[in-house]
Amino acid sequence: MTDEPRSPEPTPIDPAVEAALVGSREARAATLLEFARIPSISTQPEHAADMVTAAEWIAARLRGVGATEVEVCETQLHPIVYGRIHEAPGAPTVLVYCHFDVQPVDPVELWETAPFEPFLRDGRFVGRGVADDKGQLVMHLSAIEALRAAGRAPAVNLTFVFEGEEEYGSESLFAWIPQNRHRLGADVAVISDTTYFEGNVPAITVGLRGIMYAQIDVELSPVDLHSGQYGGSVENPAIALARIITALKGPDGRVRIPTFYDDVVALSDADRAQMAALPFDEESFREETQVPALVGETGWTILESRTARPTLDVNGIWGGFQGDGAKTIIPAHAHAKVSTRLVADQKPGKVFEALRDYVAQVAPRGVRVTTTFIHGGEASLTPTDHPATQAAARAIRAVEGVDPVFIREGGSIPVTAAFSSVLGLPVVLAGFDQPNCNAHAPNEWLDERNFETGTRIIVRLWDELARLPRGAQ
Amino acid sequence: MTDEPRSPEPTPIDPAVEAALVGSREARAATLLEFARIPSISTQPEHAADMVTAAEWIAARLRGVGATEVEVCETQLHPIVYGRIHEAPGAPTVLVYCHFDVQPVDPVELWETAPFEPFLRDGRFVGRGVADDKGQLVMHLSAIEALRAAGRAPAVNLTFVFEGEEEYGSESLFAWIPQNRHRLGADVAVISDTTYFEGNVPAITVGLRGIMYAQIDVELSPVDLHSGQYGGSVENPAIALARIITALKGPDGRVRIPTFYDDVVALSDADRAQMAALPFDEESFREETQVPALVGETGWTILESRTARPTLDVNGIWGGFQGDGAKTIIPAHAHAKVSTRLVADQKPGKVFEALRDYVAQVAPRGVRVTTTFIHGGEASLTPTDHPATQAAARAIRAVEGVDPVFIREGGSIPVTAAFSSVLGLPVVLAGFDQPNCNAHAPNEWLDERNFETGTRIIVRLWDELARLPRGAQ
Repeated sequence: MTDEPRSPEPTPIDPAVEAALVGSREARAATLLEFARIPSISTQPEHAADMVTAAEWIAARLRGVGATEVEVCETQLHPIVYGRIHEAPGAPTVLVYCHFDVQPVDPVELWETAPFEPFLRDGRFVGRGVADDKGQLVMHLSAIEALRAAGRAPAVNLTFVFEGEEEYGSESLFAWIPQNRHRLGADVAVISDTTYFEGNVPAITVGLRGIMYAQIDVELSPVDLHSGQYGGSVENPAIALARIITALKGPDGRVRIPTFYDDVVALSDADRAQMAALPFDEESFREETQVPALVGETGWTILESRTARPTLDVNGIWGGFQGDGAKTIIPAHAHAKVSTRLVADQKPGKVFEALRDYVAQVAPRGVRVTTTFIHGGEASLTPTDHPATQAAARAIRAVEGVDPVFIREGGSIPVTAAFSSVLGLPVVLAGFDQPNCNAHAPNEWLDERNFETGTRIIVRLWDELARLPRGAQ
Repeated sequence: MTDEPRSPEPTPIDPAVEAALVGSREARAATLLEFARIPSISTQPEHAADMVTAAEWIAARLRGVGATEVEVCETQLHPIVYGRIHEAPGAPTVLVYCHFDVQPVDPVELWETAPFEPFLRDGRFVGRGVADDKGQLVMHLSAIEALRAAGRAPAVNLTFVFEGEEEYGSESLFAWIPQNRHRLGADVAVISDTTYFEGNVPAITVGLRGIMYAQIDVELSPVDLHSGQYGGSVENPAIALARIITALKGPDGRVRIPTFYDDVVALSDADRAQMAALPFDEESFREETQVPALVGETGWTILESRTARPTLDVNGIWGGFQGDGAKTIIPAHAHAKVSTRLVADQKPGKVFEALRDYVAQVAPRGVRVTTTFIHGGEASLTPTDHPATQAAARAIRAVEGVDPVFIREGGSIPVTAAFSSVLGLPVVLAGFDQPNCNAHAPNEWLDERNFETGTRIIVRLWDELARLPRGAQ
């Protein structure tokens, strides 16, 4: 920390950059649509080539804005794109992170249009990845392009790291970061993969939940059994699985895995008061999701339950006959994807072990049950008074005309913890999507206004961060 | 009942019929394989045309053995094949029933060969339907062909009813029977859709369980929700479904639906002693299924639990992400196929209503839950000392050389109750499959020896039933 004043006035608008952005509006939209046509689904092996295509697409764009050392780095799975624009001697260095992989598209029948034929209509981009996270990646590329068009270089030194496994646990990135520490030196990391607050209220995210994702497999027999001949004499694996799942979480919303809450950092009264002051309307939130009723953890508000408290969900369940009509079998096996959302200081590995042991303990006899770790990421929590956080707040105020609120998000960005703990960087989560953008669901969208203001905030953010003395963190 | 002696000696073997059967062995096997090539899956709309093909195939065969009034009767769904050979004036009339529809084939990847490319190898027919129930239908056709080849007519009058919706609840047949009562007059019904006892022990089934098959749908929202953004604030439909399923059946194997056991006819001490005396080896039964352990209803043997006690199973469960890897969603909805096996005198309609009301009662808030009836069939229980049952026992003894055991089967043949209650007929369940034949599962098979002895027993059964005075029931 230095004696830099907390909240100086924002830097004035650069008319040449603004003119460039106004002039490039259609071209920038076309760029996002082009990028979103690439079906870069990281969790599905058949899309491995698309991951490479997306990475090469970014690398070409980086080269086009004069980035140096641009590289599509091979990893054990999907590539990472690296590049830098270090043209501000003496100024701070900013590590910029977005991801270019997207979620799978199923249930594809609920998409109103083809997921990978994105379009811009009535002020909305629609398509898989337009919000999470390709839109934000293109905002970063656009900000540089606008600076170049205005004859300027970024006022800070920028190092870009764009990854392709954010939706798959970021394993390759976790291996790559320590191996590339020598070219990742920076003063601060800026991650653009978060959202504004409900109602499109400008926000900076200071808390993210972590994740532990696992699969539970329940096996009865090598083949389905006739439910008439065997019903009543063998354990039903779907019922056994139901019994296990029921044991994992109580009707009060509390996770029943022993030791689960042991490492949770308690919310202070101040934290709770700050959250209570946020403009969060439960009924609008409920209407947006169209659920019959919100159900949180007993003793906590809905906002606390979904952002500041850990929880457990079943992400998928399957076994036996799923078609129309009837098939009179006892399924040979049944399966569930089960994940927990974690808060500071829960550790994914420890939580997985507790889950695995508990499942083994509550599993009914008569079936074979195994629990397998799929991926994990730690939660993160950043102080709101950090100079970099305050710089981002000024950039937002300059463009949006209001101070941002400081929020916690329920989602997970595992890389946040890696930047913070491995590289020792303060992390600013500056993201511009709206929270109801259908990330991970059919009909994902991005408001063009957010695409426009987000790009401008990024331009301002480089100016604001340039005012920080090096070592401000 | 008459003063007809209970168990006279079996009729002598007719050498001409036996010679015909020996001579037609290959042709009869080829007939079954030809029939089993037709993918007559009644529960899948895309196989509607195959149902008609299978019905026409049977009709042609019936005409070929001189049946009259042969008709492929249209119904609201799949056809019913009717035909008669009434060439024994004054002799009893027997209503013969088999079904020509088969179960779906999934999981098709667990079949070692294509389900509808059946074959006979090393004394086994393998393919969908070779046991359940096409093999037994072909045994009946073969028995008539052999009699014809020997220059004989059946000693009883035969009325054939072959249906195409046995695996789908027999709804069309239930509507068709009362409409066709005028041409279904008979003295006894013979249904061939059951099995011998474990270890290929000749048996006559005197008890069948009924069924009530339903679907439970749990809806949260129109689209999947991001598990980070929403996790902890909305009910998870897969967890809600797990909670409902867990409430349906206790770890003791007892169904928890109120009133479920109200109409169950108690097993007498004699019933239990008779079942205990059957050559049932729990360990071989377990090994055959390859389950880790048998799990019955507390207080009842495994054999009782699977044949003489009602139970509840989940036949399929699904919702959310089922692929490789991870997708961080809360499923929009989750579903389960749930069925109960019923015993006398439980009524499917009443059991469904009790299930539906109980599900509504235990359903968590925050989701919409509906329970839908799919199909139902009543249980049946026949006296072992009925003259027709005793006639069947003599036919079996004549061919197999041993007295059959009287058993209960866990499966359901809804038509049994219809023949018994609507037409007022005594029903003999004479079936020749082995209980571990993978009916309803991959790699369904039929032992060729059972195909041969079954055909001969049917020939004998007509002779034995001819000895009953009319009105013996």
